[in-house]
Amino acid sequence: MPELRKDPVIGRWVIISAERGRRPSSYSSVTRVSDAAMCPFCPGNESATPSEILAYRTPESEPNQPGWRIRVIPNKYPALIVEGDLNREPMGMYDRMNGIGAHEVIIETPEHGRDMVDMTDEEVRDVLWVYRERMADLERDIRFKYILVFKNHGEAAGASLEHSHSQLIATPIIPKRVDEKVAGAKRYYQFKERCIFCDIVHQEINDQERIVKDFDAFISFEPFAPRFPFETCIIPKTHQSSFLEMSDWEYLTLARCLRDTLIRLKLALNNPPFNYILCTRPTSPEYHELFHWHIEVIPKLTRVAGFEWGSGFYINPTLPEEAAAFLRGIEIERYGEIKHPRASGEDG
Amino acid sequence: MPELRKDPVIGRWVIISAERGRRPSSYSSVTRVSDAAMCPFCPGNESATPSEILAYRTPESEPNQPGWRIRVIPNKYPALIVEGDLNREPMGMYDRMNGIGAHEVIIETPEHGRDMVDMTDEEVRDVLWVYRERMADLERDIRFKYILVFKNHGEAAGASLEHSHSQLIATPIIPKRVDEKVAGAKRYYQFKERCIFCDIVHQEINDQERIVKDFDAFISFEPFAPRFPFETCIIPKTHQSSFLEMSDWEYLTLARCLRDTLIRLKLALNNPPFNYILCTRPTSPEYHELFHWHIEVIPKLTRVAGFEWGSGFYINPTLPEEAAAFLRGIEIERYGEIKHPRASGEDG
Repeated sequence: MPELRKDPVIGRWVIISAERGRRPSSYSSVTRVSDAAMCPFCPGNESATPSEILAYRTPESEPNQPGWRIRVIPNKYPALIVEGDLNREPMGMYDRMNGIGAHEVIIETPEHGRDMVDMTDEEVRDVLWVYRERMADLERDIRFKYILVFKNHGEAAGASLEHSHSQLIATPIIPKRVDEKVAGAKRYYQFKERCIFCDIVHQEINDQERIVKDFDAFISFEPFAPRFPFETCIIPKTHQSSFLEMSDWEYLTLARCLRDTLIRLKLALNNPPFNYILCTRPTSPEYHELFHWHIEVIPKLTRVAGFEWGSGFYINPTLPEEAAAFLRGIEIERYGEIKHPRASGEDG
Repeated sequence: MPELRKDPVIGRWVIISAERGRRPSSYSSVTRVSDAAMCPFCPGNESATPSEILAYRTPESEPNQPGWRIRVIPNKYPALIVEGDLNREPMGMYDRMNGIGAHEVIIETPEHGRDMVDMTDEEVRDVLWVYRERMADLERDIRFKYILVFKNHGEAAGASLEHSHSQLIATPIIPKRVDEKVAGAKRYYQFKERCIFCDIVHQEINDQERIVKDFDAFISFEPFAPRFPFETCIIPKTHQSSFLEMSDWEYLTLARCLRDTLIRLKLALNNPPFNYILCTRPTSPEYHELFHWHIEVIPKLTRVAGFEWGSGFYINPTLPEEAAAFLRGIEIERYGEIKHPRASGEDG
């Protein structure tokens, strides 16, 4: 069973997941599947994955058979596992607990080689609805304090399979970086009695210079102090603490905003590897006033080296105002013509 | 001028250093020099670097000419610059200050292609003495709250030049990760009235299972909750808050311990890219009782992906006890014969 261990000085929990199979001798080679015929995420290969948890599929099709549009499965090599108790215990001055949690994979499309930028807005919205459905289900398990949805795109961003997918991890503790955001938002709230993220939205709309695009209910913008070049944030303009608080129609606007961001980054930076992370509030409703959900999109352009690991202090070689201007200048309307000739032959 | 900007929520400072020359269009190609004839760190090419700050050189040789064994120069593309005032100021709800600091490069050897593992213990000690000398000098500048020394080895670990070198960055703020360590050590001290690092050393020596090697005054060990596989820590057994507190002879023992660690990692993991980071206390002596300096050595074996960036929560696929046993089993005595045939023809 995986275990959670706590760094005694900093207080950060780490997942030690030896089941994921990395013996000391195995670090020289990594297997990657880019051949569609061998891909476990392609239709026809459903038996290569654990049984599905959820799928959007045609009415006549059977579970774990072709006919699905989106499919959710447990991760075959889970970092955390669902069965068991938390069992927090000391080891001398150290702390550990069982690696209880959930680790799921959302296969976003049956088509190998089709990315989120190539999907329709409605297809991306359906992926977001699937996130919502899985998050709402897992929030009912009182062992889970946080549910993190993220996407790794491209090998350099950590994707081990090429077929377009996202992941979800439910954890029995609030992860450190979320905890830091909560703590920072709380300090601000105590001082100002306002949500810090709402104030950020306000200042960004006033300043304009870091805005990439203003959608109806959301903005995409480059943060004032980004760790990475072209790090882009998507945030609802009005206060929503959780990703689950949106009305159905808002997910479609969000899908438009997310696709717009991904297409701009793809055209601006020559299809970079990237990660996006859905930062929603911890599962407990007590954080409703403080937290304000958002999505961080991070293209992987620079290497993180010793200075950053040692200090937690990042060197970003691109001004966010300059990155925002560059992204605003991308002619996104032409994306379909230039990069997606096959779209013309499709009906949805 | 570079600037420092503060993330309003988390409170992390970021260096925005547009002078380092990464325009939006420049992310597709990175220039790397692996040809010794073109290497700015090789003897004979001294004019390709800024003027040296310090060098250990033969008595008859001239500054910025060949004849040096170790050479310290300002970074040609500094993340922070020495001249100017701090000028902390608001930008609406945000905070910024001038990017004041120092950014130096320590060229560890005149020989291109010679790594720290190929050096003698005395040569590595001399590098450590140079660290000490530069740190002591910069500590006298009251604008600097922290001095971070680190090494990036290998392209994947962020080294842009192959020739063996380390870097030093002096910063006008205490970097976030150091601040977290100080805060954690302080909580522990208030509770126990003991240094948390001293207690860790005590438990590690008792447990033995995570120890890699026990030297006279230092141990190398795998931390209980490491973020990365084969992350290794070197720490003095008795309390020393700063790297500058060692007696002269202790630097030689430390050099042996550091070389031992680097050779084990090289043999165990097939010459991996790595970073090491010297974690010493902040420049102010007020941290003397709380802090305990150490070196973190991090081989770069896994990719850091969306989950880690988003959560600050790391998945480590190797048990530290297993990594320690593997490293203990490396036959380090044979390193000279196997990997360093040229050593036999040298006299020191």
